[in-house]
Amino acid sequence: MTKDLTISLDAMGGDHGPETVISGADIALLRRPNLKFEIYGDEATVMPVLNRFPKVKAVSNFYHCEVSIAMDDKPSKALKSGRGKSGMWRAIEAIKKNEASVCISAGNTGALMAMSKFCLRTQPSITRPAMAAIWPTLSGESVVLDVGANVGVDADQLVEFAVMGAAMARALMDFDRPSVGLLNIGVEEVKGVEAVKEAGRLLREANMQNMKYHGFVEGDDLGKGTVDVVVTEGFAGNIALKTAEGTAKQIGEYLKAAMSRTLLAKIGYVFAKGAFKQLREKMDPRKINGAVLLGLNGIVIKSHGGTDGEGFASAIELGYDMAVNELLSKIETDLDEFADICIRLEQEKDNIVT
Amino acid sequence: MTKDLTISLDAMGGDHGPETVISGADIALLRRPNLKFEIYGDEATVMPVLNRFPKVKAVSNFYHCEVSIAMDDKPSKALKSGRGKSGMWRAIEAIKKNEASVCISAGNTGALMAMSKFCLRTQPSITRPAMAAIWPTLSGESVVLDVGANVGVDADQLVEFAVMGAAMARALMDFDRPSVGLLNIGVEEVKGVEAVKEAGRLLREANMQNMKYHGFVEGDDLGKGTVDVVVTEGFAGNIALKTAEGTAKQIGEYLKAAMSRTLLAKIGYVFAKGAFKQLREKMDPRKINGAVLLGLNGIVIKSHGGTDGEGFASAIELGYDMAVNELLSKIETDLDEFADICIRLEQEKDNIVT
Repeated sequence: MTKDLTISLDAMGGDHGPETVISGADIALLRRPNLKFEIYGDEATVMPVLNRFPKVKAVSNFYHCEVSIAMDDKPSKALKSGRGKSGMWRAIEAIKKNEASVCISAGNTGALMAMSKFCLRTQPSITRPAMAAIWPTLSGESVVLDVGANVGVDADQLVEFAVMGAAMARALMDFDRPSVGLLNIGVEEVKGVEAVKEAGRLLREANMQNMKYHGFVEGDDLGKGTVDVVVTEGFAGNIALKTAEGTAKQIGEYLKAAMSRTLLAKIGYVFAKGAFKQLREKMDPRKINGAVLLGLNGIVIKSHGGTDGEGFASAIELGYDMAVNELLSKIETDLDEFADICIRLEQEKDNIVT
Repeated sequence: MTKDLTISLDAMGGDHGPETVISGADIALLRRPNLKFEIYGDEATVMPVLNRFPKVKAVSNFYHCEVSIAMDDKPSKALKSGRGKSGMWRAIEAIKKNEASVCISAGNTGALMAMSKFCLRTQPSITRPAMAAIWPTLSGESVVLDVGANVGVDADQLVEFAVMGAAMARALMDFDRPSVGLLNIGVEEVKGVEAVKEAGRLLREANMQNMKYHGFVEGDDLGKGTVDVVVTEGFAGNIALKTAEGTAKQIGEYLKAAMSRTLLAKIGYVFAKGAFKQLREKMDPRKINGAVLLGLNGIVIKSHGGTDGEGFASAIELGYDMAVNELLSKIETDLDEFADICIRLEQEKDNIVT
């Protein structure tokens, strides 16, 4: 029998608040029946919705919170006004108190990151947490990080991202030794910024057991799925993510326009309806909803603010799968391995020199 | 009557060498009949192809060059071995000697940039040249720069990019006052890196006559066409460009797979063939081939190395249009205006202080 797994939910986050969060929990429960929830939010807003979803209510504890974090609050302001008493903070704190294994919020990204760092702290030997997204590719899915938490990083941080991303790929995708690429603007070893080159050297030298370092990859390798894990600094990663989303939308618009321009095209559309439905499903951004905050003492997931119940359910299931597959201990194991390798390599160098 | 315009061609660049270059010139000549060409390359390789295109031959001078730059030569090596005598160098030099108005090469990007800088030098008050691409959007086309020439830039360089990009938009797209956005990872004024924020402040304060500063834009604004000119540092810009290309290919593959999976889908495809053709044309990367090296004393265009004749013709026509519309003098005028504004603003500040 599968053990129960508890997820804490910030019911007030996102563009549609509890409507999305609770209906998402209801959908997730159908597919992961051993879920339990700790739900945080404003009672007057959340309770009427929770009453409409008795199955969710039956497996949940609800906690009234006076403060809600607005989508446009600055992180510092959110931390000041929301620490200890906002739904977001308390949902995160539930992990620290061992009352939940994963926390999910569709709220303000900056506030969620700031509060998570403050409340949970980073894992040992992690400099700063990163944000990882799951990227649909021609050959399946890849983990891409950082997608916006860290602007400007050094080589050591890129290595940390690589280790965390590979652990996430192992936790989610059943890879023994995921391949890892560093995002760069040319595949030749000579190109790109110093930090990326140095990180490449470190990863190649370490030759870790749980990760196969592939080398540099370029922007078009993301969609191809050239590697299982793509590592980059947060500014470029965020721009890549949003550019891909924008391009997908743009082509969807072109397609819609083309299929409605002539009578023949419209007839063709009717025949090929099933195929278009399949394509839409393939491109459905809700199916891969949820960016994971990696490197914290706990699993925190940021759902897209504008998603619906189906999308929020994906984020819940993502969190469930990572917790069941012990993401955090995988990251720790891999970081330890990397540290051991670094020490050994240093010692070998010393021996050569002396 | 339209005046003749001469374009110098590096016939040896790209994956298919003169085959692409000369057939491209032939196609461009159909649409821009007042073109003349100065063609540089290895005689034994180029002449047989040129003989097959008598219309091109009739309006061209050919110059034999002993050295050809390989696609994977390092820029420093290319400069050393190719300076003065390679086809690439001499095609660039033709601009300096006033023998051509535009130079086009499908060769090694790094070598082309290095040679162009060395041979033509940067325009007065430009720190470093940038590489600009034309981006197809839902509302038409935008100019995006830098797409890979400069990794890591400061605020002043971003401002230079903005001025050059706006001048290019005016030269190509018939805008009086193109809108300019700075690529960032959040639209709020507070987010992002220091250089981007500072550039935003400078552009807003300058409030130039030939450019409407819009503010920050994000990755998904590229496809939407939110602004006419998108300005960014070269690492993020290159990744955005290649990510968009990769995503477009990925969705094309999805579509192809969906349309061939069932009999009904195949029937639908037959009916909607015209629509799909239209879509393919809309997404045809050859139609927007050619990245422009901006900020040099001359117009140099880098064609995609893997393109065909149709794609190379697009690059020629792009160069033609920019030369006819006096891109270089537009950039100079705008830079002068910006410098004047900066001086005035400084004086005003001094007056306030004293």
